[in-house]
This record gives sequence, C-alpha cells and structure tokens, in this order.
Amino acid sequence: MIKVQEAIAVIETSSTKMPVKQISIKKAFGYVLAEKVISPISMPPFRQSAMDGYAFTHSIRHQYDIVGTSQAGDHKNIKLQNTEAIRIFTGAYVPDSADTVVMQEHVMSNKNSILIASMPEKFSNVRPKGEQIEKGAVVFEAGTLITPAAIGFLASLGITEAAVYKKPKTAILVTGNELVEPGKKLKKGKIFESNSIMLQAALQTAGINKTKVYRVKDNLKATKKALKSILKNNDIVLISGGISVGDYDFVKEALLQNEVKELFYKINQKPGKPMFFGSKNETLVFALPGNPASSLTNFYIYVLPAIKNRMGFSEIHKPKLVRKLNSDVINDTGKTLFLKAKYDETNVTVLNGQSSAMLNTFATANSLLIVPDDIENYKKGEEVILLPID
Amino acid sequence: MIKVQEAIAVIETSSTKMPVKQISIKKAFGYVLAEKVISPISMPPFRQSAMDGYAFTHSIRHQYDIVGTSQAGDHKNIKLQNTEAIRIFTGAYVPDSADTVVMQEHVMSNKNSILIASMPEKFSNVRPKGEQIEKGAVVFEAGTLITPAAIGFLASLGITEAAVYKKPKTAILVTGNELVEPGKKLKKGKIFESNSIMLQAALQTAGINKTKVYRVKDNLKATKKALKSILKNNDIVLISGGISVGDYDFVKEALLQNEVKELFYKINQKPGKPMFFGSKNETLVFALPGNPASSLTNFYIYVLPAIKNRMGFSEIHKPKLVRKLNSDVINDTGKTLFLKAKYDETNVTVLNGQSSAMLNTFATANSLLIVPDDIENYKKGEEVILLPID
Repeated sequence: MIKVQEAIAVIETSSTKMPVKQISIKKAFGYVLAEKVISPISMPPFRQSAMDGYAFTHSIRHQYDIVGTSQAGDHKNIKLQNTEAIRIFTGAYVPDSADTVVMQEHVMSNKNSILIASMPEKFSNVRPKGEQIEKGAVVFEAGTLITPAAIGFLASLGITEAAVYKKPKTAILVTGNELVEPGKKLKKGKIFESNSIMLQAALQTAGINKTKVYRVKDNLKATKKALKSILKNNDIVLISGGISVGDYDFVKEALLQNEVKELFYKINQKPGKPMFFGSKNETLVFALPGNPASSLTNFYIYVLPAIKNRMGFSEIHKPKLVRKLNSDVINDTGKTLFLKAKYDETNVTVLNGQSSAMLNTFATANSLLIVPDDIENYKKGEEVILLPID
Repeated sequence: MIKVQEAIAVIETSSTKMPVKQISIKKAFGYVLAEKVISPISMPPFRQSAMDGYAFTHSIRHQYDIVGTSQAGDHKNIKLQNTEAIRIFTGAYVPDSADTVVMQEHVMSNKNSILIASMPEKFSNVRPKGEQIEKGAVVFEAGTLITPAAIGFLASLGITEAAVYKKPKTAILVTGNELVEPGKKLKKGKIFESNSIMLQAALQTAGINKTKVYRVKDNLKATKKALKSILKNNDIVLISGGISVGDYDFVKEALLQNEVKELFYKINQKPGKPMFFGSKNETLVFALPGNPASSLTNFYIYVLPAIKNRMGFSEIHKPKLVRKLNSDVINDTGKTLFLKAKYDETNVTVLNGQSSAMLNTFATANSLLIVPDDIENYKKGEEVILLPID
C-alpha cells in the first residue's frame, strides 16, 4: 500500500509527454505549445492611432488645417506641413510626418480646420510600431497553455498553425457481470453501469471528447484478450471495476499477463483504496475502483493530472483552496480522506453521504476536502485544504 | 454611459431562458436541467454487500458453514440457517435471510467454513435497498448543472435522457476595412483579424463549440443587410468593432435600423467602454469593442454570464477571489478598471501592458483585478477582488 503523495509522485514521473503535432490555431484551444513561437511581424505593423481624432506634428500651435483623412485600413502617407492635420480613426496608419494624435473630444472643428482645446503631450495616442512585439521576438515559450487570449494574439500576428502536444488517446474498459447498460431492462441482482458514461464526461473536462468504451465479462480470458488490443491502441487506459481482492476480480492478473508493469496497487486513502497503476511502453493504465464515487475521486486526484502531464501542462494540479470548516471532522482510519464538500467564499461544509457507492453527494459537491492520513481530527473553524472540482 | 453593476443587471434581466429539449445523458455534460428528474428505481435496487466477505445472520456465534456464493450480478436468494453463511462479493445481492456481512480480512476460512475473528455489528456492510434514493423520489431539481457525477448518478438509475435548456446559437459579425484574415498577405495599413477566432475559443469555455463568423466591410448598407439574417437565426450575436464614435462606425445605426432595442451604450469602465447591448425579441446583441483586450474583457464580464443565464445556470458569475496586492494601484479615471493580473495562493500581481489593444498580457493573466469606479487607489498589501479567468 502506497501513500497518496507517493502515488501522485509515481504517476508524475511515469507520465511521458505525448508526441508533437502541428495544429490549426482555430482548433488549438486547450492544447499546450510544444515549441516556442517566433513573431513573423511587428505588432502593430505600423504606427497606429489609439483614438478617433486628429494627427499632427506637435508644436505650440493650436490651430491646424485639415488636409486629409486616415481611416483604419488606409495607407496614405500624407506629408503634413506644421500647420496641417488629418482626420484619423482608431487603428489607422499615422503618417510619418505626424507624431501626435489629439482625441476628437478635445478639439473644436469645422469642415476645414481644428482648434485644439486641450493640447496632448507629444507622441500621445500614437501606438509605436512593434509596441506589443517586434518581428523575430518570442511570442510564447514552449509549455504555454493555449487560451482564448493566446489564440487571439497568435492570430493577430498572422500565425495560423502551431506545434502542440497531442491529446492522449484514451479508452475505458468496463468489467462486471452485474452491469446492465442504461436503457435496458434491469434484472434482479444487477445494477446499471454508470462509470463509463461518467468517466467519459469527466474526460471532457480535460478536452478529451472522444473516448471508446469496451465491456467484458468477469473472466480472465476475456479481460486479457480485450486488454491486449486496448493497450496497443491507446495512450491512457482506464479500467472500471474488477480490481479489489475478491475472487472474481481478474483485472490485475490480466494486466500482468499483458506485460503491464505494476507501479503501485492500493493507496492508503478512503474512498478509492483499491486502485492499480501501471504502464506498458508509454501507455498508462489506471484500474479504478468499481464504486462510482471512488472511481470519480481517483479520476480527479490521479488521472486528470496524468492527462495534463502527458499534454505538456506546466501546472498539472488544480490550485488548492483554503477554507474554514463548518463542523468537526474525525479521521480514525489512518488513511487520507477525500470528503465530498461544498465551499463558499469563506467556509466549507462536508456533505452527508460519503459512502464510496454514492454519487448523488458528488453531484452537489464542488470540492474534495483532503484530510491527510496523519491528521486525526479537524475542529470546526479550522482552515483546511480543498481540491476544487468543476 | 452606464455603470458596470447596472450593465450587469440590465443584461441579467434581459436574458430569457432558452427553449427546452430532450437530450441523451451521454451528451448532457455542461447543460442545465430544465425539469426535475424522478427516480424510476430504488438505488441500490436490492440489499447490496459493501465488501468482499461473508453474509450471515448476526448472532453470538462465530463459526458458520459456507453453503453458497453470491457474486455481483447473481440473484440467488439462498435461505440461510443460523449456522450458515455464504461467500459474497462487493455489490452482490444479500439473501433475505442474511442481515450482516463480515469483511474477508476479519475471518479465518477453509473451504467449508469460517471463523469470525472480529465480529462486526449487526447490519454492517449491507447497503439497504434505496439507501441512495427511493423509487419516485426527486433525483435532481430543475436548475441542476449536469456534471460528470450527475451524469453518473442519472445513468446508475437507468435514466438515458433528460430535459435541458438548449445552448444559445451564437454568431460573430466582424467589421473593419483594416482587417486581413490570418494566413493571407498583410498589406500596408492593415492588421490581421484575430477577434473572431479569439471569441470562438472563448465561447468554447461555455460549451459553445460551433460559432459561425460573418465579415462585412465598414459601410452601413452591408452591415445592415448582414445583421438582418444573423439576428433572425441566432440567440446571441457578438459584433466585433465598429461601435466607437468614429465617423466610420456604422454598427449602432445598422442595429437600430434592424429594430434592435438599445438597452445601453457605453459603460463607465476601462478598457471596454464602447460597448452596445441590445435585444430583438429574445436575441441578445453585444457589440463589443474592436480592441482585442477590451473585447475579451467584456466577453468575460458580460457575455459569458448572459450565455449561462440563457442556459439556465443558477450561478452565472464565477465566484470572485480575494488576494493581497503586490503593488499600489492608482485609479484616476473615475471608471471601473479591469486589470489583467496573475494571482497565486495568497497574492496578486498586476501585469505590465494594460493597453486595450494588447492581448499578450491577457495570455499570461489568470484573472481580472476589479478596481471600482469610486476607488482612487489601492495600497500594496490591501485585499482586492479578482475575477478568475480560465
């Protein structure tokens, strides 16, 4: 049995980065850059007006003749005399002979001339060429997460593709003779299989939108055979159920016979203790507990960070939160507890219904309260650590 | 000019809920329930063993003969004598004549009998029928966000469909003669158009994965014509650019001529002041500033909550964070400032490069620091309010 922190560390050191691919910027949201990006242009590419107003050459003079117009998109390099100005709009090209733009709100104007009521400082309202970035400079370093703002900035530089780490191809194998697919008739002694659909949704939170689900009966031969091809064709394999010590749990044996290297089995935690983690080549295998709440807990604690690690994220764990407890918490297990909890701006409440089979509590929780194995109790009002889930 | 809080309130009261549709649970992640859900079964549907072990009738006796096996999925209602037990596995049916399960770790066993070393209390390790939910009880109220755990719970009850609010059909209209699509050649005076691709990515954070982009030149006729069909076919319309007071900004006029009701124009904030908000029937129109950072700021502050409101979310605003400032902040504008900022567990740093045109700062920010219009300065070390973005 391994401690939670050790399990997290083992998974982290076992997770290699995915291969690199070129991707269209349009589809790059949520990926991580695998190579640094160099700017092909200066941005802005020319001196730009930051305001709607008038461009002129700064002097002590307040009155100027209007001799032209520069609209956004124009490129008229009008040669201004020191008595002349042009009408100019936000984003428009500022002629080489002008150095300053005055806001239209600060002038009195007629058709042919302006009188500047409030004189701006020299160079005001002119964005220098390359103010945001110079041609040839680094736009983003490798390891940058591609956010909407990053996509916008890349597009503004005319960049249409980038090198990113692929998303891991992920499969789910469901075991269990007691399981019936939702929509079918529930026979006596059976329950509906819900873990695969739950894990598919949870994978979407990591941007993995397509996950194939395989089902096998509880026997060694079928499990072994199914695993053989699943292991070959996926980067991350999630297995639901069949991993506790019951006589009918064949998963671990089937994994070992498929040459999956066992990296740990069982974690000193509650819920979620019976978990197997292993690898074959670069494929990671998580055999999760069959109990739904245990399965989802371990997904958030172990699987999600592993996916992010493979995708090149620099921060693979969600930032923890600190909140004040609304009630005492006792830990007489010697294990790390992950308690379904709901936090607000200042406090956190541990929810009723912490059994490993109970998903309804999870559905109303927004966090897992972490009680380390060496903590025997927390008092009401004490500050505790939460892992937010959403 | 309207205040930020008023603008938020106007948008909220103008946002009606989307029509309701039935959706497969498999595709329901991120939607909100439009109707309460009633459980068609009790869960668990029968008394279930919570452990791998032995089921028996609790008594003072410690030795029992093994007379059968109940594996998960079985339904053998073995009639046990008070000297008898059966081998049982997690999730398996507990026979009516048994009331207690002892963990296998707490017995000594041979092929035919067990000796219980550590006697559990009566009813231990037996999950009562309907422990999680009784048949006919409310599973989730209307307004519940469908998370992975909620999907899992619905599936475990055999539910395959639910009534949810549709996602709003959303379009983006881009205006501006100065704009060139990334990938094409950048002529003098022009810049690459980046707002549409940025907003498309930002919409994905709300689960809106398909957004059509329309482009028009800066003239009233073209803008008016394009808007006519866009307004008819969409629930939310985002317009990029063309909304400030420059002579070439036709958007507002084109909207009014299309019978869009103006609900406000211009907000007392920086960046992002020149924004128009209106509605036609139930379609909401946000004419966002053309400057990329202003556009994205207003997306997070105004558009995202409106989308969530239309989708039936009960919490449409992200919970704010409180952090300690790493430097003084001055606000001599009389406006509400939204400053690109980066927070860690305790503190927040205001980033360099707050100009409304600058997206690169946004790409490294994880939050917007909100400085209300009536605050003239914050001192280093003071606690401030952040809107997290991710």
